[in-house]
Formats: sequence, structure tokens, C-alpha cells
Amino acid sequence: MVPPHTNAGAIYLQDTRVTFIHLKQPITPMPPATAPFAARLHACGTEIAHTGAELAARGWTPATSSNFSMRIDDGHVAVTISGRDKGALTADDVMAVGLDGRAYVPALRPSAETAVHLQVSRRQPETGAVLHSHSHNQTVASRLFAAQGVIALQGWELQKAITGYTTHDSKLDVPVFPNSQDMRDIEARVDGWLDAGKPLYAYLIDGHGLYTWGRSMAEARRHLEALEFLLACELDLKRLGGIQ
Amino acid sequence: MVPPHTNAGAIYLQDTRVTFIHLKQPITPMPPATAPFAARLHACGTEIAHTGAELAARGWTPATSSNFSMRIDDGHVAVTISGRDKGALTADDVMAVGLDGRAYVPALRPSAETAVHLQVSRRQPETGAVLHSHSHNQTVASRLFAAQGVIALQGWELQKAITGYTTHDSKLDVPVFPNSQDMRDIEARVDGWLDAGKPLYAYLIDGHGLYTWGRSMAEARRHLEALEFLLACELDLKRLGGIQ
Amino acid sequence: MVPPHTNAGAIYLQDTRVTFIHLKQPITPMPPATAPFAARLHACGTEIAHTGAELAARGWTPATSSNFSMRIDDGHVAVTISGRDKGALTADDVMAVGLDGRAYVPALRPSAETAVHLQVSRRQPETGAVLHSHSHNQTVASRLFAAQGVIALQGWELQKAITGYTTHDSKLDVPVFPNSQDMRDIEARVDGWLDAGKPLYAYLIDGHGLYTWGRSMAEARRHLEALEFLLACELDLKRLGGIQ
Amino acid sequence: MVPPHTNAGAIYLQDTRVTFIHLKQPITPMPPATAPFAARLHACGTEIAHTGAELAARGWTPATSSNFSMRIDDGHVAVTISGRDKGALTADDVMAVGLDGRAYVPALRPSAETAVHLQVSRRQPETGAVLHSHSHNQTVASRLFAAQGVIALQGWELQKAITGYTTHDSKLDVPVFPNSQDMRDIEARVDGWLDAGKPLYAYLIDGHGLYTWGRSMAEARRHLEALEFLLACELDLKRLGGIQ
Repeated sequence: MVPPHTNAGAIYLQDTRVTFIHLKQPITPMPPATAPFAARLHACGTEIAHTGAELAARGWTPATSSNFSMRIDDGHVAVTISGRDKGALTADDVMAVGLDGRAYVPALRPSAETAVHLQVSRRQPETGAVLHSHSHNQTVASRLFAAQGVIALQGWELQKAITGYTTHDSKLDVPVFPNSQDMRDIEARVDGWLDAGKPLYAYLIDGHGLYTWGRSMAEARRHLEALEFLLACELDLKRLGGIQ
Repeated sequence: MVPPHTNAGAIYLQDTRVTFIHLKQPITPMPPATAPFAARLHACGTEIAHTGAELAARGWTPATSSNFSMRIDDGHVAVTISGRDKGALTADDVMAVGLDGRAYVPALRPSAETAVHLQVSRRQPETGAVLHSHSHNQTVASRLFAAQGVIALQGWELQKAITGYTTHDSKLDVPVFPNSQDMRDIEARVDGWLDAGKPLYAYLIDGHGLYTWGRSMAEARRHLEALEFLLACELDLKRLGGIQ
Repeated sequence: MVPPHTNAGAIYLQDTRVTFIHLKQPITPMPPATAPFAARLHACGTEIAHTGAELAARGWTPATSSNFSMRIDDGHVAVTISGRDKGALTADDVMAVGLDGRAYVPALRPSAETAVHLQVSRRQPETGAVLHSHSHNQTVASRLFAAQGVIALQGWELQKAITGYTTHDSKLDVPVFPNSQDMRDIEARVDGWLDAGKPLYAYLIDGHGLYTWGRSMAEARRHLEALEFLLACELDLKRLGGIQ
Repeated sequence: MVPPHTNAGAIYLQDTRVTFIHLKQPITPMPPATAPFAARLHACGTEIAHTGAELAARGWTPATSSNFSMRIDDGHVAVTISGRDKGALTADDVMAVGLDGRAYVPALRPSAETAVHLQVSRRQPETGAVLHSHSHNQTVASRLFAAQGVIALQGWELQKAITGYTTHDSKLDVPVFPNSQDMRDIEARVDGWLDAGKPLYAYLIDGHGLYTWGRSMAEARRHLEALEFLLACELDLKRLGGIQ
């Protein structure tokens, strides 16, 4: 039995977790009708709304573009509802979706790119938050490097902001995948990269923006901020004629 | 008879609307002396002032440039008064003008480009708001593409922010018309484009800025934000030597 | 006799004015000991401080650079004290200086470029405010166009923000004078330009920034905002390879 | 004996100072257990936090990069703790370190570049504050000028914002040292430059950002703001094809 929901801030995940430990793959998520689930969904929504306001203030989410998600539990993700202004989100602009893509409130439509968010969470289960943004630098870099399919970052101290990187001498590859209105095309590109055994911390879609993620929202944001900075530097080096 | 004006937020448009349904073309607008009309004008002024403050904060309305309008009813438009600082507007900086250009307070002078606002509302009657802004990117792009007369946007996901566009693969043409201090020259260019049957969502005037519109102020702003973003990206691709 | 100073906002300029009408050249300013003079100085200081905060917020006054002045009366100017942070001015950071350059509080040092402010006020007596700022675009443009000595602005709608300009087809020349630590060198350049009968609304000093002015602070700011915008556009057209 | 700590704002440095006058080199700092020392550490922490918030707002400290320090007394420096968000610092995110590098709370790790901060304080004992930031312009300039090892600034009025410079005609050399994850490599480069008798007000590390300092935090910030401005101008002149 679920205790009455008296504290929106409290998160009790144990009972739902137990359920999922036994289910594994294929995932058949439970209906999110429990109070702990609702509390956790609300907490994710609040953190996503806060992040949206900050990214929008930097101009990285123009014209209702971009979408964000956080892991609720082993089988569910909280994701932004389609078409909302990302600078004015509240917890109510975020909805629960199962890892298999099933939405719990069929009247609401999750962000069009939800499938790609779910793919990250399935393939890298430690992922806690996924951010898709659409800054000027991300968009221009994606067009400029689309033909060669990858941006190779090297020699920047800020590469160390990506978890696992400890020196500017390492190489950080950010792939650029072709854009498609069919998310399965993009999923196939991501699967191809990962199945080839290459590390993946972020990717660009041509003319469309960046996906990156982290174990927590804080880590995802640090990755986003570092990649935005590095892409801006790479573009500017090109404008300046490159390193002699 | 007009009910007493007890709630500035309420909008009763029926009676004036009835009048206009019978009048059609040529439009002879009624004097805006009714309380519902005044309330609707005030509501438009408030929304325009709010929009002006946000666009000015982004630097898109330098040195008292730019002007904005909203549809009041079938025969009237609310438009900014000439020469006011667009970042510090109040509802009192907006005045009513008939679709035929007649101003109701002859002592006030509407924005110099009012005729162009009215033309959009006459030719595309579903228009609810028209925005003319004057950002750096809009102005530079207008000079750079003036000779070829059009900027062809293609391959950008954000084209989907323009109502009616559903894929980045479509082509979005933004014409660039020559500047003139005589608004009839600009009206003739717009008429020429529309009479040729070409779709028109926005246009640039050489050295002068952008016009765009939407069914509501929210749609007009989404169009403006998307077009500003796309023009900035196009310019930057050019600075970077273009797509190889 | 001077009435007791009971209202800091009130400005009574008549008595000092009478004095100056009879004095003409050479100017021997009266000591600014009257209450009306003090009130007017304080009002100028408040307006200068407000302007400084807004220009600093745009990054146009880096590292305590820039200085501002306003006309107090026929014989005196209020000017910023040397070395103060232009983003954090109060009325107390502004001091009175006679048109002949005499400071009334010898312990305070007015801005190093005070002589150039006074020259504008002497040669164009209708001047109410002079702004010297130091933005990125102003500084870069001054270096880039120093050899040819002038930036010729043409074809921009925003030229109409300069008082007296009514069309984008006119030509607006902004001279670029060589920098010097001796203000007399700069004064001589300005005199040379004016003595040749050329109109002057603003000028750049090489590597140093912009001077512009207006009959009121509002007009001076509109001129500054328009010129900053136009210089930024000219530079960007150059980055983009110019108009084909 | 130490008086009871009743006023966090008060700073009594005499007793600790006496100790250090006698110790000289090698420095064996006293434990920072006295109330005056704690008060001074707290005051430094507050000033560093305030500075961090302002630099972060300008985007100069992306993704938890950058670090700052202030001199506490003859033998100690207050420095930011590793990995904290530089836009959200409090006095508690700053710790005391001896000039010999000894940290007083072994459980805390000072910023990775602490050794470089200490070197500045040892070689230029009048230094009161050291700022390491990581702006776009600093990072791009460091890559672009790494091969020639120095950026020579000349002809900019704002060079006068660097203490000791009185004319734009002087030359201000900012060296660019290779990056290394071993701080001793960077220290050796700095020592080499200083031992050659060359003036040093700031230096860049390739792909990594800028170090600058001043006798007070205000002077260090003025130096940082001026150098950021000058580097941005130098880069932009290059984008524009340089001075003809």
C-alpha cells in the first residue's frame, strides 16, 4: 500500500525498484500511480524546469526547440512535453515515459525526439540526465563538419570537464550524424557508433543541435557547457585561419 | 449600447465585429469610442509593450528603431507610436489605426512603417501580430543578400518553427526588398511577390531589418526568434567559408 | 541673494546665466557656490551615473575607461572624475569644470580627456551631453580605418537616428583621428575638421574609442547606440567579404 | 594571546606578521588557528566569491574551470577549493595554503593550479590577488599564438589600464607557455621568463586560459578586464585581415 502523499519533496523509490529488478528486459513498466513515483517525477520536473530556464537564458533553446530528460527509476524517464517554451517550463511540462517509449497520459505528446533520449538510457544505464540543445555554435558546427562526420577535439584543457578525461592531450571525438525526421534513422547511427566500440559522450545532428548526458543533471550540464565552449573555440580557430 | 467599462481585462468584440462584417471593402472603420474597443486596444498595447521590452533586451531594436502591431478587430490595428523607445513602451505608446491607414487621434503619428503593417493584415487576414525588428544579423544579412534578392534557407531543423513547415528538407525563401523612404515602393514589392503566388512568411528590407508575423503574438515571436537564429547561422557559415 | 537650498531636484539657472551673458569670451566662470548651481550639478551627476551604469552593462566602458559630461550652464560642464569605475558612478563621481578647463575643487582631477569634452561644448554650443565610450567595435573599427582617416556610412536605415538625417541614402562620415596622450593634438584635429566646414556628429580616436554628443543626454545616447550598431555592421560586412 | 573573535569583519594581522618577519625563507607557516587569521581568510573568501560570481556571469569560467587566490599574510594564500562552480562560490569554498604549498585541512584539495598561484606570490611579493580565468578569447588566442610564444600588444589606449603603463605607444608582451598537467613545467617557464629580466603582468597557457594579478583584487580585476578586451581586439583585427 502506498502511504498518503504528504511531502512532495520526499522520494521513496524502493517499492517500484523491487518490481523492476525482477522484470529486466523486455521492460514492461508499471503504471506510475504510486505516490513515490509521482514525487520523483515531480522532483525531476522541477530540476528540468530549472535547467531549461538557465539554458534558455543563454539562447541555447530558440523558438521552443530543445528537450530534456531525467531518469525516474529503472524503467522510466521524465521528459519534456512537446512544443513548450523551454525557458518557461514548470514541473507540469514534464511527463513520464517508459524506457520502451510508452507514455502514461496518452493525451499528452512527449518531445518528438524522446526515442533518442530513451536510447541513451538503455545503452548507457548509468545515465541520469540527457540534454538536447540547439545553440548557434552547435548548429553551425554540425553543418560545417557534417561531411567528415566527426569533430576531433584535442589540445584543450577543458576536455577535462568530460568525465573520464584527465589531460588536454587526449582526443575527444564528437560524431555528427545526418538529420532525419524519422528518429529510427538517428538511433541506427548511434547504435552503429556504439557497436563499433567507440566511446560516446555526445553527438551532433546535422543542422539540428547537440545531445549530451551525464550520471546526474549536474554532470550533464557540465558536459554541455564544456562542449559548447569547445565547439565555439574550434569554430573561431577556423574563422581565424587555424593554427599555423 | 455599450456596457459600462468595469474591467479593463475583458474584451467584448461582438458589436464592433458585426459592423465590419457588413462593411467589407472599402473599409470605413467606426470610431473606436466603445468601451470594448478601448479594452481590446489596451490589451494589445500591453502585449506589445511586453514584447518590446524582451526584444529590446536582446538588442534587436537599437536607437528607437523597430515597430510592432496587433490586430484589434476586423478593421483596426494597434500600432506603436513613432519615435518611442521600444524597450520602455507602455500601453499608452500604442494607438489604433484603421486598416485603410486612418489614425483616430490625429495629433499622434503612428510608426512611419505603419502602411507596411496594414498591408500584411489586408493580404493575410488571419494575421494577429506583425513585428518589425532591426537586429545586427537581420541588417547585415539584408545588405549581403540584397543583390540576389532572396535568402534561401534549407537544411536547418529550426525551419520547423515556421508554421506549416514539417521538415528540415523544405526550402524557406526570405526575400530581400530594396529600401525606400516611400512605403509605397515597399508595398509594391510585397504585392509583386504575393501576386506571383510565392509563399511569404517574412521579408527583409535592405539595410533596414526584418518583417515577420503570425496568427498570434506568440506565433509572430516564434517566427522572429527562429528567423533571427537561421540568419545568424547562414551568416556564420559564410564567415567560415561555407559547407565543403 | 541665493535662496536656501531646500530641494535638490529644483534647478534655478537664471542668476548664473545673467552673469555669463555679459562675460562672453574669454570665459571667467563664477565659483559654483550657489545652491541652484549645486542642484544642477547634482542633477547632471545623477543622469551621468545612470547612463554610465547602462553603458557599462553593455561592456562599452572596460577597465575604468570612458568618460561623460553634461552642460551645467553657459560657462560650466559636469564631468566624471578620473579613474572611477563607470559602471558604479554616483553623483559624487562627477565634478564641475569651467569651459576654460578650470576645476573648482583642485584636489580632484577631472577625466584626462576633459579638454576634448570642453572643445565640443565651445564649438557646438547647443551641445548638452558628450559621451566617450570604448566598446570593442569602436576600438577595432578605429584601428582598421585609421589609415584612411574616415569611415563613410551609407545605405543604413539607422543613419536616420542621427539628428538631421532623414534618409538611408545620405552619407555619414565618421573621422578617425590619430591617438595622442596630449589632448591638444586631438583638439587640433577636431578644429581642422570643423574649420574645413565638414559636418561632425562623432569621431573615433585610433585604438581608443568614440566621442559623440547631443543636445540632451537622450539624444547623445541615441547617437551612441546608432553609431555602435552601424560600426558593428560595417565591420561584419568586411568579415563577410563585403557587398558583392 | 588571541582576543576573542567578536567581529568577523575585523582583521588583526600584527601577531602573525611578527612571526613571519623573523622566519623568511624557507617559510614554515604557523597553523591558521588564530581568530585574526580566520577572519582574514573569511574576508578573502568573501571577496573571491564575489569576484567569481561576476566573472562567471561573463562566461569566463566555464564548466567549473578557473581558480582565484588572495594573499592572507606574509606566509599564506587563500585559494579556491578544487572543482567548485566558480559562479556559486561562498567563503567556505576557499581554503588557506602556505606559500610552500602546505594545505591546512588535508581532507580538502586546493585547485590543481595552486602551485602557479603561489609562484606569483613568491616572485612578486607585492601581489595581493591572482586570477586564472578561461574565457573564449583567452583560450582561442592562446592556441593561435602558441607557436610564436608571445602576443605583443601595441597601439591600444587600454594598455594604460595595466599598472605602470602610461601611453598606448608602449609595448605589452603577454607570453604564451605550453600547457602541461605537471605544474612544475609551467613554473619553469614562468621562472625562465622572469629570470631573463622581462616584465610580466600576465601570461597565457596554450589551450588553457590566462593568469594575471595585482596588488589588490580591484587591480587584478582591472588587469583581467583590460587584457580580455585587448585579446578580443587583437583576434578581431586578425579576422578582419589586419591593419592595412
